[in-house]
Amino acid sequence: MSALNTDLYQLTMAAGYFAAGKSDELATFEITVRRMPDHRNFLIAAGLQQAVEYLYNLKFRPEEVRYLETLPQFANAPRHFFEFLLQMRFTGDLSAVPEGTAIFPNEPLAIVRAPLFEAQIVETYLLTTFAFQTLIASKAARCVLAARGRPVVEFGSRRAHGPEAGILAGRAAYLAGCSGTSNAEAGMRFGIPVFGTAAHSWTMAFASEEESFRALQQLLGDSTVFLVDTYDTIEGTRIAARLGRPMWGVRLDSGDLVELSRKVRRILDDAGLSDAKIFVTNDLNEQKVAEMLDAGAPIDAFGIGTQLATSFDAPALSAVYKMVELSRGGGVHYTAKFSDEKKTLPGAKQIYRFADHDMVTLADECGCDFAGAEPLLRPVIHKGELVEPLPTLLQSRATAAAAIAALPAGLRSLEDAPPYRVDVSARLIELAQNVRNNLQPVRS
Amino acid sequence: MSALNTDLYQLTMAAGYFAAGKSDELATFEITVRRMPDHRNFLIAAGLQQAVEYLYNLKFRPEEVRYLETLPQFANAPRHFFEFLLQMRFTGDLSAVPEGTAIFPNEPLAIVRAPLFEAQIVETYLLTTFAFQTLIASKAARCVLAARGRPVVEFGSRRAHGPEAGILAGRAAYLAGCSGTSNAEAGMRFGIPVFGTAAHSWTMAFASEEESFRALQQLLGDSTVFLVDTYDTIEGTRIAARLGRPMWGVRLDSGDLVELSRKVRRILDDAGLSDAKIFVTNDLNEQKVAEMLDAGAPIDAFGIGTQLATSFDAPALSAVYKMVELSRGGGVHYTAKFSDEKKTLPGAKQIYRFADHDMVTLADECGCDFAGAEPLLRPVIHKGELVEPLPTLLQSRATAAAAIAALPAGLRSLEDAPPYRVDVSARLIELAQNVRNNLQPVRS
Repeated sequence: MSALNTDLYQLTMAAGYFAAGKSDELATFEITVRRMPDHRNFLIAAGLQQAVEYLYNLKFRPEEVRYLETLPQFANAPRHFFEFLLQMRFTGDLSAVPEGTAIFPNEPLAIVRAPLFEAQIVETYLLTTFAFQTLIASKAARCVLAARGRPVVEFGSRRAHGPEAGILAGRAAYLAGCSGTSNAEAGMRFGIPVFGTAAHSWTMAFASEEESFRALQQLLGDSTVFLVDTYDTIEGTRIAARLGRPMWGVRLDSGDLVELSRKVRRILDDAGLSDAKIFVTNDLNEQKVAEMLDAGAPIDAFGIGTQLATSFDAPALSAVYKMVELSRGGGVHYTAKFSDEKKTLPGAKQIYRFADHDMVTLADECGCDFAGAEPLLRPVIHKGELVEPLPTLLQSRATAAAAIAALPAGLRSLEDAPPYRVDVSARLIELAQNVRNNLQPVRS
Repeated sequence: MSALNTDLYQLTMAAGYFAAGKSDELATFEITVRRMPDHRNFLIAAGLQQAVEYLYNLKFRPEEVRYLETLPQFANAPRHFFEFLLQMRFTGDLSAVPEGTAIFPNEPLAIVRAPLFEAQIVETYLLTTFAFQTLIASKAARCVLAARGRPVVEFGSRRAHGPEAGILAGRAAYLAGCSGTSNAEAGMRFGIPVFGTAAHSWTMAFASEEESFRALQQLLGDSTVFLVDTYDTIEGTRIAARLGRPMWGVRLDSGDLVELSRKVRRILDDAGLSDAKIFVTNDLNEQKVAEMLDAGAPIDAFGIGTQLATSFDAPALSAVYKMVELSRGGGVHYTAKFSDEKKTLPGAKQIYRFADHDMVTLADECGCDFAGAEPLLRPVIHKGELVEPLPTLLQSRATAAAAIAALPAGLRSLEDAPPYRVDVSARLIELAQNVRNNLQPVRS
């Protein structure tokens, strides 16, 4: 977690703020998602734990600062800027919605308030951390809904965007309701249940399929899952059925899974193995899961890999980090962008959740106007120190489950639903107009 | 780079091979991409450097082994399996096509030959490492082709799949022809040119746009890029033009970039700044770049972020790691999968590249049959040791440039082209039939 893992322009700006004597001005930035990605009706916030760990451990190593000194972009930077970098720690504040909260576009999921210099440097890492886990949690929530109570296991490490993305995808998927992950390091690091028994290579490594199945059974006992499709699914299932208990069940990984699951179910039942389960994998996604269940396929659990760990149908969130306030010359200035398709609303904000809609307000609007509504943004770090311990992953998973259950039914459908209603308070609209008209209000 | 960063089933299989006395059988696995992703005509192999670093450093930490001991899946595992894990290193062989090589589906881009136990454990990390960088390099190659000689800078860290994915995306993009990256850590770690000057927040942090531009100019001199669209692109450009030199040019990040680039060019030219360049960003991809250039937009350079760093239109490769040979009982057995849509061809292979097609053969087929063709797979690691130093990133970048230049013109188009011809040798076809018919040939 190096402070150098950021866009270079954060560092050139930091040098410029330093040179201009502005590096200590207190800035407020918010992270929002601009637009709902295709095929999503809600987002599940995730990544706060890793964001906090980053801010807590933020520092430049001496060799990193020496590297920056060699870059042409810093040729005119004040020499004591580099000294300053070496001593930099995160001394600001972070507010955020708890992990597992359902959120919508243009609602700040996190707010950073820190000296301009620090707030700028942390942008890139915070964006990628919140955006990626939120992306995966939001996809996982749909997969879990599609499975209608059946377990869904995240299996995508091999197709994730690099070795670390697989681990973080496992975390985000579990947070959003998956039953576990195939990634052993994610299991250890985050205390997530881990699943997995054998691949096709296991079957191929023995002289016969039957021999491979026996060896697996010996090792795994009741947890045994026979992967029956290496050579021929029906024949593989017959071999498994002949071996009988102990087993958890069988896995199908190719072919027409609806048709095959029916045939496999019959073979297992005929062998007196009605308690043996059928687990399916093979480039699944939420639509395929729903279609199989709609067709009445007797499937007990799903493993979803590539499409979950990459959020394949919507592989990025339009997450942005925008300055909304800056203390300058003794007062607070509100800031906003007015370019056509990228407008932002000024001012530090709060989100109030009512029964059927949300309201985005200024942070200091009187909460009494919003009786019965829950404020979603909570203080997490104050002056560089954690305000209270973060929830455990299991607690965040419960938050997500409750949030998803509380959504209007239309949003929980896999079909595209009309957007959830997110209002903006009258005071916030007025402030935006004033800032646009250059009637810059200043708080003293 | 923990050995625990793998799918759990690799470890249950490892325990099972150990229990069955098979862990030292020598297995050969190959990594191939099953199908060309949508909107791609070729792939650029990447990730070998990180794969080698992983294999070189592979080991389990004691606490990781203790974690595995607590899992129910290992309740029946032989107790000395865990001792064995602690001592495990990669002692096998790795062959691969050099980074930067153009490759096609069903051509092995890497081959691992190692004791079954080791070969299995490394699957997950190797797949994600090769597949992700190959994915990004292949996307980047298209972006670079679309820009027709103009520089393309990779800007996607904030939208990449986590903080580490951004760094690796920067590497893969540079390898495939991008001019550099915005990610400072990628710059330091891999020696990649880094780019970036200022964001909208820089403009907002000053009392006026002009003041912010002056401060930037003071810091960056000839490297100054004025981001002119924070409030109004034309007005911002006029301010930049009034300030005049030193500057590299301006950046446009919103609106109709074709129209705006023309107006901006005129303002700059009218101010005698015909050497000032126009750099554009804003959710670009190769199609948008090509369309802008087709429309004659006077744009000098492109920054591509989200769509490049996530390979947005095709965010995963169908990369697989399949066993093709196993030494068992004193002979070599060829292995393959026969399930309908996931057939594999048995045997360790070589790829020969002719002028207009490739031929996949068995590794030990006589090369003299393939006169004039270049064998693409080369030994990289032998018995755990590097055969020769890997090429530098700059050398691999030259390999990629030459490979792309040598492709048939149709494949270099952004339009979908008919697949490149990849033949399979007669001996390989015969072997596959024999294996399927259970006429398992055995090499002594």
